[in-house]
Amino acid sequence: MTNWLDQVQWAPDGLVAAIAQDAASGRVLTLAWMNREALARTAETGEAHYWSRSRRRLWRKGESSGHVQKVRAIRLDCDNDAILLEVEQTGGIACHTGRERCFFQRLEGDRWVVVEAVVKNPLQIYGNG
Amino acid sequence: MTNWLDQVQWAPDGLVAAIAQDAASGRVLTLAWMNREALARTAETGEAHYWSRSRRRLWRKGESSGHVQKVRAIRLDCDNDAILLEVEQTGGIACHTGRERCFFQRLEGDRWVVVEAVVKNPLQIYGNG
Repeated sequence: MTNWLDQVQWAPDGLVAAIAQDAASGRVLTLAWMNREALARTAETGEAHYWSRSRRRLWRKGESSGHVQKVRAIRLDCDNDAILLEVEQTGGIACHTGRERCFFQRLEGDRWVVVEAVVKNPLQIYGNG
Repeated sequence: MTNWLDQVQWAPDGLVAAIAQDAASGRVLTLAWMNREALARTAETGEAHYWSRSRRRLWRKGESSGHVQKVRAIRLDCDNDAILLEVEQTGGIACHTGRERCFFQRLEGDRWVVVEAVVKNPLQIYGNG
């Protein structure tokens, strides 16, 4: 029997895109990346784990901020190459800028405009060094 | 002044991930890919355009099915490398399998289970060749 992790169509770099959506509000919070280990740990622990492409390491969402994503459902798309997590976002903040979510810029005419406010100053979330 | 398209952090392959979310229901419908031209045309026409990685060509969503995505808002994330479209999904079907959306498989234990029904037989959408 094929392992469920083998059914995922990992890209040549070993990753798939993973969307996190707030299970209560339906708002799309983040788009991040998972490798096999990140998805396995997400399923095992019920907390979202990702692969950080910039830091090149496994990353438990909220490990430094406390803004853990508790996973209510894990979905896979028709091509088996994209993941959708339905999550409960601890602290109501998913973005490292201190906003509810990462998609806070909206195209208005020919400009990207910041349309969502900072909920908490990142210095208060992460400290200042 | 920097063009808004230049502010997007295109990956080395020239693409960014683009999520489409139903503007009314909040359901996440699709995860697809855009190159610069796809995003430009999406903004110009108000209909979602993507880059098909398998067919290696620009693709207007719904061009063969009629299931056009009318774009109500275009959002960009904090890293400028992921797009979120808020769309009105024509026909209520976003997936080529004839389902409302592509994320119809859910992890239950160690199995991916199909949890959403086909709305319309793909043969009726695309013909049978």
